[in-house]
Amino acid sequence: MADAPTVKPVTTAARRHHDPEVRGFASDNYAGAHPEVMAALALANGGHQVAYGEDEYTDHLQRVMHSHFGPAAEAFPVFNGTGANVTALQALTDRWGAVICAESAHINVDEGGAPERMGGLKLLTVPTPDGKLTPELIDRQAWGWDDEHRAMPQVVSITQNTELGTVYTPAEVRAIVEHAHERGMKVHLDGARISNAAASLDVPMRTFTNAVGVDVLTFGGTKNGMLFGEAVVVLNPDAVSHMKHLRKLSMQLASKMRFVSVQLEALLARDLWLRNARHSNAMARRLADGVGQVDGVEILHPVQANAVFARLPHEVSLRLQRRFRFYFWDETAGDVRWMCSFDTTEDDVDSFVQALKEEMAR
Amino acid sequence: MADAPTVKPVTTAARRHHDPEVRGFASDNYAGAHPEVMAALALANGGHQVAYGEDEYTDHLQRVMHSHFGPAAEAFPVFNGTGANVTALQALTDRWGAVICAESAHINVDEGGAPERMGGLKLLTVPTPDGKLTPELIDRQAWGWDDEHRAMPQVVSITQNTELGTVYTPAEVRAIVEHAHERGMKVHLDGARISNAAASLDVPMRTFTNAVGVDVLTFGGTKNGMLFGEAVVVLNPDAVSHMKHLRKLSMQLASKMRFVSVQLEALLARDLWLRNARHSNAMARRLADGVGQVDGVEILHPVQANAVFARLPHEVSLRLQRRFRFYFWDETAGDVRWMCSFDTTEDDVDSFVQALKEEMAR
Amino acid sequence: MADAPTVKPVTTAARRHHDPEVRGFASDNYAGAHPEVMAALALANGGHQVAYGEDEYTDHLQRVMHSHFGPAAEAFPVFNGTGANVTALQALTDRWGAVICAESAHINVDEGGAPERMGGLKLLTVPTPDGKLTPELIDRQAWGWDDEHRAMPQVVSITQNTELGTVYTPAEVRAIVEHAHERGMKVHLDGARISNAAASLDVPMRTFTNAVGVDVLTFGGTKNGMLFGEAVVVLNPDAVSHMKHLRKLSMQLASKMRFVSVQLEALLARDLWLRNARHSNAMARRLADGVGQVDGVEILHPVQANAVFARLPHEVSLRLQRRFRFYFWDETAGDVRWMCSFDTTEDDVDSFVQALKEEMAR
Amino acid sequence: MADAPTVKPVTTAARRHHDPEVRGFASDNYAGAHPEVMAALALANGGHQVAYGEDEYTDHLQRVMHSHFGPAAEAFPVFNGTGANVTALQALTDRWGAVICAESAHINVDEGGAPERMGGLKLLTVPTPDGKLTPELIDRQAWGWDDEHRAMPQVVSITQNTELGTVYTPAEVRAIVEHAHERGMKVHLDGARISNAAASLDVPMRTFTNAVGVDVLTFGGTKNGMLFGEAVVVLNPDAVSHMKHLRKLSMQLASKMRFVSVQLEALLARDLWLRNARHSNAMARRLADGVGQVDGVEILHPVQANAVFARLPHEVSLRLQRRFRFYFWDETAGDVRWMCSFDTTEDDVDSFVQALKEEMAR
Repeated sequence: MADAPTVKPVTTAARRHHDPEVRGFASDNYAGAHPEVMAALALANGGHQVAYGEDEYTDHLQRVMHSHFGPAAEAFPVFNGTGANVTALQALTDRWGAVICAESAHINVDEGGAPERMGGLKLLTVPTPDGKLTPELIDRQAWGWDDEHRAMPQVVSITQNTELGTVYTPAEVRAIVEHAHERGMKVHLDGARISNAAASLDVPMRTFTNAVGVDVLTFGGTKNGMLFGEAVVVLNPDAVSHMKHLRKLSMQLASKMRFVSVQLEALLARDLWLRNARHSNAMARRLADGVGQVDGVEILHPVQANAVFARLPHEVSLRLQRRFRFYFWDETAGDVRWMCSFDTTEDDVDSFVQALKEEMAR
Repeated sequence: MADAPTVKPVTTAARRHHDPEVRGFASDNYAGAHPEVMAALALANGGHQVAYGEDEYTDHLQRVMHSHFGPAAEAFPVFNGTGANVTALQALTDRWGAVICAESAHINVDEGGAPERMGGLKLLTVPTPDGKLTPELIDRQAWGWDDEHRAMPQVVSITQNTELGTVYTPAEVRAIVEHAHERGMKVHLDGARISNAAASLDVPMRTFTNAVGVDVLTFGGTKNGMLFGEAVVVLNPDAVSHMKHLRKLSMQLASKMRFVSVQLEALLARDLWLRNARHSNAMARRLADGVGQVDGVEILHPVQANAVFARLPHEVSLRLQRRFRFYFWDETAGDVRWMCSFDTTEDDVDSFVQALKEEMAR
Repeated sequence: MADAPTVKPVTTAARRHHDPEVRGFASDNYAGAHPEVMAALALANGGHQVAYGEDEYTDHLQRVMHSHFGPAAEAFPVFNGTGANVTALQALTDRWGAVICAESAHINVDEGGAPERMGGLKLLTVPTPDGKLTPELIDRQAWGWDDEHRAMPQVVSITQNTELGTVYTPAEVRAIVEHAHERGMKVHLDGARISNAAASLDVPMRTFTNAVGVDVLTFGGTKNGMLFGEAVVVLNPDAVSHMKHLRKLSMQLASKMRFVSVQLEALLARDLWLRNARHSNAMARRLADGVGQVDGVEILHPVQANAVFARLPHEVSLRLQRRFRFYFWDETAGDVRWMCSFDTTEDDVDSFVQALKEEMAR
Repeated sequence: MADAPTVKPVTTAARRHHDPEVRGFASDNYAGAHPEVMAALALANGGHQVAYGEDEYTDHLQRVMHSHFGPAAEAFPVFNGTGANVTALQALTDRWGAVICAESAHINVDEGGAPERMGGLKLLTVPTPDGKLTPELIDRQAWGWDDEHRAMPQVVSITQNTELGTVYTPAEVRAIVEHAHERGMKVHLDGARISNAAASLDVPMRTFTNAVGVDVLTFGGTKNGMLFGEAVVVLNPDAVSHMKHLRKLSMQLASKMRFVSVQLEALLARDLWLRNARHSNAMARRLADGVGQVDGVEILHPVQANAVFARLPHEVSLRLQRRFRFYFWDETAGDVRWMCSFDTTEDDVDSFVQALKEEMAR
């Protein structure tokens, strides 16, 4: 491990506009960047590096990725999750292709229609009880390949962990991949929170990705401590081509790519990705355990990663939101989502549980 | 101005893979980030901030932008230049709209077809001698608004400074805007290097933008010392709507937007944008002056910003490229482009001129 | 009414390749063209007419359309149903817009992804018991207009009659329109079989379209006796703009448009549209009545137009298909669809029922 | 050859709205349909035929196409020329592909941006003196295949005959094809007026298409005597895949396809295509010969097909347009286009020349 270069105090015209001690439970996107990631940026700065991905940091990143996903893996750093997913799905589909996904998938409900508008992609959605697809659920949409009236199912896209905080076991992913491959479809894994899934399963990431045949994944860095940045990771080189062209036309090509790649290196070269994920998972566990003891609060899904979904009286949520930021998930039903992140502290959790108890008691 | 917080030395798993003392003349994208920008990142870090642009830094950025572009301006931070341009041009066009631009425009030749593929935009191009449009040149494409067989000209897009290193005067921009507006078209200014243009003209940016009626511009931060990040700046609010939706569906919405906004603040709150631009312009001037004295080297365009275009013997360029990185612009013709950046030193320039003299003499 | 010009016998290099006496129950698209439509083509032929819709036939068609849909209506003839729908929906949405429709809607399941790929449209689908939306069902997707992460619901699209052969009452359409308009959404009616719906309800088409506020409809000609051709009919001129440009860029602009328009005139100038629709509806009624008496055959949806959906033993269907063409709707469940058309005869129906009885008895 | 069935006089609600004896020189799209084509429609009518291209007429059409383009050819009937071109070009390109074409190409100037908007296609245009590309002209855009910043040149698209009425010789097409294929690009031929080109060259169509390696062509039927309808003809099956899916998603799939296919059969089964083309070419020749003798009228391009481009005093054109319809091509320059069609008579031409003389003499 390397020390970051000693940064001499610099006067900047920018000012601090926020209180760096205030945290909430709204989203892992509300957190900032991990100090080790910030230090990595300083290391990569200075001098000239070839733009658009021909730099030394992006080159080295490939070796780091090999250590996680095997020697065939190739990483394409991009800016954000929507961009990563749309780039990956375009690579996996022909112009006539469609993507089978859970109705609750981020690509279906949280990307502003970018897959359809930017990628021309038809999503074939399936309702799921817990955000997870199965071979049986996939079969509700996996048919009609010869029928030109139907957008052709060419990809199954799963999210690990899911948008509902649940985690696929390696065996579950394997069953999906085998099912898809037998039907000529490829498998995309949206790994916006893949680190949390690995931490939850206590296995290397490869165990539920290339070891079980996933073709392309998107590795999420932002939610796990980076300032910004994700990577499309091609595990099966035969599944795609011209990724660089696709990334560029999808407006996801960073000119000074060293600053994305070095952040990914900071996460992945050793264990920062895992430490951060384990911590946010543990905080969610602690939170679930705490609120699970409060009468009138119901935990809605298995808490397997860094999210807790709960149902509680609407007016309690409103009062609680004045003390801690978090979102309703289904406001009519009274469902809320509490997210923990790499910087959530035990005190944060305990204070929140205490506040919840107080508001429930009013 | 604020001091950056004292950053305690942090050990990171990332390593330095490059020599921070090596610089070339290939692109202002080869440079890293300015130390004041790095310091700003540290200020914005820590604690939780609302994601997706509802943070304090993006809020404050609006006030900073007002100081440059007037109280009606609204900035939408995005990731990169292609994303900024495609987002802005979609906002300015209907589904049946087309964009008039110079044949040499970045949107036409350097964005991988993103305007067409992602935005569904038809570009109506015009050859220009120096990268600059004029009312007369615009008229070669500005016709046929009622003809459904023709994509409707709705926007004139100019680049300031141009891809050939030339700079529009405020009067030239005004003439274009008046011409466009009289014909019902709006004006987009691709300001990937707008700071260099302002430095070259020695006027505030508003002088050649909102003061003369430009509707929307894209402010370029990356090439002028940021790690990444640009902003779509709406000057005429009546010209567009739903920019936030367009930015999202164009895959340009940063979750931790504070880290884009604070970089823009570092540039724009005082004069870093201008210091950097003046410096890179001055280095290009110094370079042009140096090579202008070398027999056999021809300067091709007026050197008005941070680029020098030159024609010299092909084999000399090849030898010189072994000592300093730079690109051919038109290899058949022997044309090259030398770019200076905020971190180019006088020594860099002088060494380069000396090397050029040596290679010409061989 | 006019006699078609006497066509002198003409020798043509084309030959007859089919038996014009064979009919089945597969689709109203399997039928040919009505003789009155063929005669209309001959009337419009000869001499020169301005191309691309500036002809006398398209001009006259507007007056015919006014007699059905009021003086504000404007018709834009196009080639086919997918083209009509995608053109109309693009006209009703911004780049960030989405369309709420039934999961079973033609635009969702039978257009090869054209709405997504060609129109960049996100479809927000809702499962329905009978192909019909209601205000309550619409509300499952009608939310989140301010949320840029969500494609914005801007249109409700209904099909009259539905893909399941059911018919909205005028009151039902009115309730949907009022609900949509109150929420700032517009209403599109896919009228691929609008004539059958009007015949079924025994009301003029305007009763369930402009009288209740529908903004844009697509009038289906092909399934009701034309060789080809549909029309996008704008009922609310304020709801759209630049329809001609949209039709052209959607590749739906016929050069010799007189041949589309005169077919529509043949249908709509007097009552051919209604005679054809009443007849095919009556044949479906006769068919349903006939098979309804056969033990082991279950009628699945109310038979309100020219389609009969039934469930019967799979092997019976397979044997019956050797005698009459028709399609499975859900082969696993044993569901089939039997369609009647303007040229279906009572004998056709009776023979089919007899054959069904025979195959059930084997 | 077959007689069309005797059509009993039918009373239709449609009326004749035009004078079938009036013709002009505006466009071959102003003409109606040839009587043999009309007769063919009657042959194909009656009874049920499988929809969407599985009918006997479309099946037989393949054999007719084989007689022209060899046994590997496969025809995909579509509605119109824009649809044909955009479907074909999508088939020949990846998502990152671009199309090299003449600046004057129909796909660039007359399709309302459909290639860009519907196909996501970047057009790389080249100015030409006469509408014809050459290997040298192609090379102005044929470069940069490895550069992700550039939309990748994957197709060369030529128009035969061109939009300027000029005709490529077989040797010229061969040179283009060899040049393109050597560089890994495929060749598309827009044959909106391919029959006129064959008539002009006095060779079979195959001589300048599959005999010289063209990969895909679009056969134009509408301008040569059909009511509507074109065909994408795949000559090199290895160059494309899933044409049926592409045709559907491009909104070009006719349900009652027999009525497109039988028209193509009427043209192509024997020599109607050639008779019509020879006639319109001859009329253009006669027209050019006639006006060529008029002082003050300049013929602008070689008259090799059915178009005559001329330059004459603007006020003469305006007066002449009151007597015969035709279009300005470049109104500022005084350039006009006069088109002949299959139904243009010698008297039409002679009357027009006489009228021109009169107006020139005033």
